[in-house]
Amino acid sequence: MTVDKNAREAIRLHEKLKGKIMVTGRMSKLRPSEIKLIYTPGVAAVCEEIYHHPEKKYTLTSKGNNVAIVTDGTRILGLGNIGPYAAMPVMEGKAVLYHEFGGVSAFPICVDTTKKEEIISTVRAIAPVFGAINLEDIESPKVLEISDELTKSLNIPVFHDDRHGTSVVVLSALMNSLKLVKKHIPSARIVIAGAGSAGFGICNLLVAAGCRNILVTDSDGIIYKGRRGNMNKYKSQLAKITNRQGKKGMLPDALEGADVFIGVSGKKNLVTPKMIRGMARDAIIFALTNPDPEVSPCVAKEAGARIIATGSYLFPNKVNNALVFPHLMRVILDMKIRKITMSLLLATAAAIANTVSKSDLHYDNIMPDMYDKKIQKNIAKAVADLRT
Amino acid sequence: MTVDKNAREAIRLHEKLKGKIMVTGRMSKLRPSEIKLIYTPGVAAVCEEIYHHPEKKYTLTSKGNNVAIVTDGTRILGLGNIGPYAAMPVMEGKAVLYHEFGGVSAFPICVDTTKKEEIISTVRAIAPVFGAINLEDIESPKVLEISDELTKSLNIPVFHDDRHGTSVVVLSALMNSLKLVKKHIPSARIVIAGAGSAGFGICNLLVAAGCRNILVTDSDGIIYKGRRGNMNKYKSQLAKITNRQGKKGMLPDALEGADVFIGVSGKKNLVTPKMIRGMARDAIIFALTNPDPEVSPCVAKEAGARIIATGSYLFPNKVNNALVFPHLMRVILDMKIRKITMSLLLATAAAIANTVSKSDLHYDNIMPDMYDKKIQKNIAKAVADLRT
Repeated sequence: MTVDKNAREAIRLHEKLKGKIMVTGRMSKLRPSEIKLIYTPGVAAVCEEIYHHPEKKYTLTSKGNNVAIVTDGTRILGLGNIGPYAAMPVMEGKAVLYHEFGGVSAFPICVDTTKKEEIISTVRAIAPVFGAINLEDIESPKVLEISDELTKSLNIPVFHDDRHGTSVVVLSALMNSLKLVKKHIPSARIVIAGAGSAGFGICNLLVAAGCRNILVTDSDGIIYKGRRGNMNKYKSQLAKITNRQGKKGMLPDALEGADVFIGVSGKKNLVTPKMIRGMARDAIIFALTNPDPEVSPCVAKEAGARIIATGSYLFPNKVNNALVFPHLMRVILDMKIRKITMSLLLATAAAIANTVSKSDLHYDNIMPDMYDKKIQKNIAKAVADLRT
Repeated sequence: MTVDKNAREAIRLHEKLKGKIMVTGRMSKLRPSEIKLIYTPGVAAVCEEIYHHPEKKYTLTSKGNNVAIVTDGTRILGLGNIGPYAAMPVMEGKAVLYHEFGGVSAFPICVDTTKKEEIISTVRAIAPVFGAINLEDIESPKVLEISDELTKSLNIPVFHDDRHGTSVVVLSALMNSLKLVKKHIPSARIVIAGAGSAGFGICNLLVAAGCRNILVTDSDGIIYKGRRGNMNKYKSQLAKITNRQGKKGMLPDALEGADVFIGVSGKKNLVTPKMIRGMARDAIIFALTNPDPEVSPCVAKEAGARIIATGSYLFPNKVNNALVFPHLMRVILDMKIRKITMSLLLATAAAIANTVSKSDLHYDNIMPDMYDKKIQKNIAKAVADLRT
């Protein structure tokens, strides 16, 4: 009911706006004397200046503040492959948040091809205009290959929000949750449901953060070294860094006695009360699939979970990338960071977690408010500290 | 001196702005209740709506107002091949004018390739996001082939400013100039210097407007049927529709007794006082190369020319595309025009010319002021009339 009402309201608002973004000039009400500076003839001198001093492209143009939000529409939210046109509202929404919370100038690039090589060559071709690339909602494992190949060949950062952004926000939430239940990163037993780009990114970052006890599951159950069916090179990497005991079985087996469930599976109602009851005391449930989580917060609570988070604005404890991408991208652009590294992501996760003060931290408030201006300040400081 | 001062001022202004454009949201100071409509979870309903009703991409997203300004940086102003990075200030300047005068949301796409096929495939790939393509400052004849191929394969209009925009503003200027000197389109003897995309576009539109006496010259002199050197398929087309007498020779030969000189040659000081003195009485000189015209207005005046126009804001009679592209694109987008046709361009040229009232029209005022709001209104009316 609430969801339906929200949907109708959303469509009405979009009809009214006819597009959520627009490209504007930094100067308005141009006088003729200004036009001859920003356009011909004056602009010719600016072009020549960049031609002779290429590094000035960052100070004389908008490149250093422009981000391309690139998708092929193959994996939009929980909706699946709906193509580049239907993908547009999400990318525009993202651009609005980039602008509003980060002052970042982000433009949607919804490409009319799903071929890996064509997506890569398109992004390479348009890269001169951008200070960073944001890959978004492209099916996995293709997107991981695109991300890796572009990172190698471009000299601007390639931020893959489903992989990097999600991993940061999950690690932040995990740090604060574990503080509350007095458990610890190295010993916590963690189950990640979903081995797409989000699961892959989360698992890698948690390992970098010191987690030693992780199981990852997909639709075929627990991933283990030597599993035959439904594998790819990224899942094989996960098999190497998780599941030291070589445990086999399905999700309920994985969850037995676990401290933390992290759901990025794309499947609603994946987790049952029975499974939650089988977890350790003070169970932590991050049911992050949008728009419908792996288990509804009420159900999880009733089954005894201590801390419950979702990706949605409809419940407390929003563990949503929007807490990360506008702020982190602002810092990336300002500091001219060229590669997304594990140390950058770890520092960012800690900075976001620490934005919630000890006195504010409680079971229903593990994350900072996305309007909190301290988030960006703290990330900037943490990232600057990395360099010194 | 003035030019140097203008150049220094332009660089200073660009340093201050750090980019002339930015992508902003149509709503600002977003409340949480709005975020859940423009982003997850509400936005999912908007995506599904477009998925099921594809035509709604025009009403629920910014596509219908977005224009890609595409260049490879091979022919920027009169500066030549300076590459995609140094091209950026011109494309941003254009985006600012699009926004300011047309309310159009234009984004620069400066591509990191000069290969025709790669430019075409890049534009095709990113087309879903845009309501129109604006090709800009790409070397000829490559750009004419790109323009033709994209026009065939895309279902959004491909506006080639150097070809279409320039031709419209030149025809407007010609119409008003001929009124003043009491000469006529069919009998006027016209010389076009330059057979790149501007020359090609102008010549085609003037022929469509009824001009029967045109010579086109390039660096090898007058183009004629059967000429061997320095030809391409577009110059061969020009040879077919101009120069019925099959005249041969260089620019001075072409200009003997001519009524009108139209310079889009990219060469400063191409035209000498002696050549102007050899033209017919009441000679009309459009020296449109930027930033330095084919002949300086003072020199042309002294040599006896009656009407002199340039593309620059530094002199009277600015015959500049900026009078066309923001206004015409607004109309194209509003009316959902899918192809740029000769009748569209002819109607636009007449509408712009007629914006200057009889009483305002004189030798130093052949064009409307670009701030004149009647330009857009008149184009809209003229284009609407085409449809009825």
